[in-house]
Amino acid sequence: MTRIAFLGLGDIGAPMAGHLAAAFELTVWNRTPARATAFVSAHRAQAAPTAAEAVRGAAVVASCLSTSSDVEAVVGAAASGLAADTIWVDFTSGDPATSQRIAARLAELGVPFLDAPVSGGTAGAQQGTLTIMLGGDPIVIERVRPVLNAVGKKIVHCGPIGAGDAVKAVNNALLAVNLWSAGEGLAALKKAGVSSAVALDVINASSGRSNATMTLIPERVASRAFPRTFRLALLDKDVGIAAQVARDQKVPSPLLQLTAELMRLAHVTLGEVADHAEAVKVIETWAGVEIS
Amino acid sequence: MTRIAFLGLGDIGAPMAGHLAAAFELTVWNRTPARATAFVSAHRAQAAPTAAEAVRGAAVVASCLSTSSDVEAVVGAAASGLAADTIWVDFTSGDPATSQRIAARLAELGVPFLDAPVSGGTAGAQQGTLTIMLGGDPIVIERVRPVLNAVGKKIVHCGPIGAGDAVKAVNNALLAVNLWSAGEGLAALKKAGVSSAVALDVINASSGRSNATMTLIPERVASRAFPRTFRLALLDKDVGIAAQVARDQKVPSPLLQLTAELMRLAHVTLGEVADHAEAVKVIETWAGVEIS
Amino acid sequence: MTRIAFLGLGDIGAPMAGHLAAAFELTVWNRTPARATAFVSAHRAQAAPTAAEAVRGAAVVASCLSTSSDVEAVVGAAASGLAADTIWVDFTSGDPATSQRIAARLAELGVPFLDAPVSGGTAGAQQGTLTIMLGGDPIVIERVRPVLNAVGKKIVHCGPIGAGDAVKAVNNALLAVNLWSAGEGLAALKKAGVSSAVALDVINASSGRSNATMTLIPERVASRAFPRTFRLALLDKDVGIAAQVARDQKVPSPLLQLTAELMRLAHVTLGEVADHAEAVKVIETWAGVEIS
Amino acid sequence: MTRIAFLGLGDIGAPMAGHLAAAFELTVWNRTPARATAFVSAHRAQAAPTAAEAVRGAAVVASCLSTSSDVEAVVGAAASGLAADTIWVDFTSGDPATSQRIAARLAELGVPFLDAPVSGGTAGAQQGTLTIMLGGDPIVIERVRPVLNAVGKKIVHCGPIGAGDAVKAVNNALLAVNLWSAGEGLAALKKAGVSSAVALDVINASSGRSNATMTLIPERVASRAFPRTFRLALLDKDVGIAAQVARDQKVPSPLLQLTAELMRLAHVTLGEVADHAEAVKVIETWAGVEIS
Repeated sequence: MTRIAFLGLGDIGAPMAGHLAAAFELTVWNRTPARATAFVSAHRAQAAPTAAEAVRGAAVVASCLSTSSDVEAVVGAAASGLAADTIWVDFTSGDPATSQRIAARLAELGVPFLDAPVSGGTAGAQQGTLTIMLGGDPIVIERVRPVLNAVGKKIVHCGPIGAGDAVKAVNNALLAVNLWSAGEGLAALKKAGVSSAVALDVINASSGRSNATMTLIPERVASRAFPRTFRLALLDKDVGIAAQVARDQKVPSPLLQLTAELMRLAHVTLGEVADHAEAVKVIETWAGVEIS
Repeated sequence: MTRIAFLGLGDIGAPMAGHLAAAFELTVWNRTPARATAFVSAHRAQAAPTAAEAVRGAAVVASCLSTSSDVEAVVGAAASGLAADTIWVDFTSGDPATSQRIAARLAELGVPFLDAPVSGGTAGAQQGTLTIMLGGDPIVIERVRPVLNAVGKKIVHCGPIGAGDAVKAVNNALLAVNLWSAGEGLAALKKAGVSSAVALDVINASSGRSNATMTLIPERVASRAFPRTFRLALLDKDVGIAAQVARDQKVPSPLLQLTAELMRLAHVTLGEVADHAEAVKVIETWAGVEIS
Repeated sequence: MTRIAFLGLGDIGAPMAGHLAAAFELTVWNRTPARATAFVSAHRAQAAPTAAEAVRGAAVVASCLSTSSDVEAVVGAAASGLAADTIWVDFTSGDPATSQRIAARLAELGVPFLDAPVSGGTAGAQQGTLTIMLGGDPIVIERVRPVLNAVGKKIVHCGPIGAGDAVKAVNNALLAVNLWSAGEGLAALKKAGVSSAVALDVINASSGRSNATMTLIPERVASRAFPRTFRLALLDKDVGIAAQVARDQKVPSPLLQLTAELMRLAHVTLGEVADHAEAVKVIETWAGVEIS
Repeated sequence: MTRIAFLGLGDIGAPMAGHLAAAFELTVWNRTPARATAFVSAHRAQAAPTAAEAVRGAAVVASCLSTSSDVEAVVGAAASGLAADTIWVDFTSGDPATSQRIAARLAELGVPFLDAPVSGGTAGAQQGTLTIMLGGDPIVIERVRPVLNAVGKKIVHCGPIGAGDAVKAVNNALLAVNLWSAGEGLAALKKAGVSSAVALDVINASSGRSNATMTLIPERVASRAFPRTFRLALLDKDVGIAAQVARDQKVPSPLLQLTAELMRLAHVTLGEVADHAEAVKVIETWAGVEIS
């Protein structure tokens, strides 16, 4: 039976690893050992004390960490345990440049790399219905398709290494643009005497609608619920990656760049635990009005 | 039977007037008389040589012009024909400040005013399924409801005079933001090796989706069809109105303001006849890549 | 001897009126009468209880108020006292559109109008060394030149009515752009290990220098002195006027528009009494670093 | 006598090397050998066929290339010729991250590195009056001070490695901000009836003045001279570096980021040979007016 190593048991990684435990022989590793211990007590899997031991003998290494820099560090720590032909699939929401650097380093060891960020949140991870955006060699993708199928529903090959990261980042950047601009517009309308409910009713039946106006703002902002499911700090990171992609590709991109700054200032203003939808609270404070 | 005057037989106004001709006694006027002549030859209606004669004796005056300034000029020209208790419904995509000035002037004549911009395009106007965004007194709205029902399907009271204009403008501003930011992102991804079809496939299944990514860009941009149904010049005007609303309401709104500038420069770059979706051609030229 | 009416005895208006009291027969009026009473106790001048009485019989009316809207209101209140051929010189930092509306109204009374905003601050007002930016008819300017010479040193005819306002606003907008962008750059350098003193030493010997880097930031920011001489609220207003001029002239102007938003958010964040140089405190808070 | 290697004989590098030839034993290298041949025919110096041969036995290696990436490549090519204790001084307008990577690599060879970008243009290079912005160890700076004195007049230690690059980039970014924003303002004023000469006369006596309004625009833009002394492509690069520094330091910096985009689009619009002051031609085209 194929052995898989899973590195990084965070809010997204742990439920993904849970699906893999049901179908494969699984070894897990986590920087904080307590999470690995908890995981193996609930799943058919074993924990390894180091990343190098976790990956030793694995056919596939899966990682799901905070940033590509974290992945780069773990690759370094795990390198001694890697064998040629192991495939490394990185589910981290990473950045293309670092993924390309990691891929080059792994290539020297004969280890193919795929960047494979996911969308769908903790719910999608738990249900195994994530969308997976892949960058890398299509032949390598075919070799790990059973692993991908175990955790994802929509599996899309985006392009060369880094393409998955780039698509994920741009998607999240558009979310940020759509959310923030709707926040600006709704705050202005509220001050002009238009309730957000009425404005959203019209916009969502018209050409200005987006996932932000149809879902995020009604459910999280106008309701004042602000559930904490996807941290603003991570959205800030993702928009920054998208902005960097546009810069690296020499595409003038004033809206993406400005949005990166707005997410940055919202992040530093609201702190590390704020949900991404809370970003509009910055606009509310500036405007002296509540979007509701 | 109620007599209605309809002023302004453009691409939206003419089909709206057509629906009214079927249900009411209708007098039409148009700045260029040929359009009025053509209209009366096809509908049960009469043409008046001046706005003042058109409105004389009408229970309801409907206008559908290019800008609120045009409406203000026509109100001046028509004033001598207006009687107290005539209701003026303005379907123009106007600006709140001018609408408020017009309303104040008409109030001196005992003529209630409603700003009532519409969305749904020429198709919605022809099918009588427009969304109508109303600003003004709810009691006045009730008095003209049969007229509104004849041309619209979703009829929303947004708030005081100018609120309809404001909501329409903000909706269109969000359309512009969503379109342009998606254009930036897709151009960057294309240069990074990701086809727009793949990127849109992912985005439209994820949190970054909007009407722009789900409809506009696939149907108009990626297809290279660029049908000319809603002029960029008009979108530029609308975003400018939304930006002005935010300024007047003292809401810091960097994304809306920057988008107003981008629409302005796209408009001056691409000219008066370009469709609004063509705005992304500016990004394509800057980036040296086609979104497709 | 020529009689002059001076309306508005604020921080700039009072010392200007003081110079005029020395050379002309002067009647003053102020919304808050106490300031007028204090003025006449210190100067050879009389106070009028209303604007209409102040302007009655005056050859020249000078105004120096907060906004053009204030001027418009005072013109309305004073109209009954105005005689044809009185000249109205408005030293307010106004906006061109309102100045043009005021000029049109005064023209109906035979009263020529000049917009004449000043720069030089309270020091320049006290020393009679203000720069005066004039919009209006050059012939009218010649007729009031003795008045202008009594308060200003550099007297510049900028163009038609509103041109003085426009130039003043653009100057202040450039001040705001230069200040804020230097703040961003210096904060980033500080975090990269470069003291602001060293950075300013280099910049001020090089191509990036401006009045902001040579004077404002060393004297007010890096010194942490932040003297309160020109309120951020007024700079916000001025940048807003410049942004409106660019919009009205249909000039794509992303930097001016964005700066208007930054001044707006700094103003609402820091309140009404903050000095304009304190705007950079917003950047310092975002960056978590002090520019010094 | 100390031997120096100079790598990169471009418009700035060649005159700098000329000053060094007068005071030191000099070996030069240039990617295109013709420039090296021309140099040695005019100066007391010898040309080396490769970078490795040029640096062999040199006490100090000086480089002046287009980008830090170019320097990184030349360091790689020259490494075999380097001896411990040679000092590498890089006069390139580089970026801090790459400079830090280069420094780390050279440190492994025992070669201290200084980033030492210059300002003052070709004139300053010819006259030996450049400003030199240094990043690195102060003790190393002392060891090369005779070299620095031979080419520069104002020599400033900015901070750790990369600090020189960062200060140079921020200076140039402020130049770009000041230039572009003045262009926007002057274009708007021109359309409002104010000549650029009058506007500049006022601004340059007031708080909005900068090197751009006092020197660049009068001498290069309003005069329509547009001499080509500093390419827009290079300014684009420098502003991009400054924007990256701000991003890396996590300083929200909307004006710097937007300016980076404007320089990018001006660069792609105007091409590789345009002078930096020509950037305002983009505004002129958008506005349909000439700043003069």
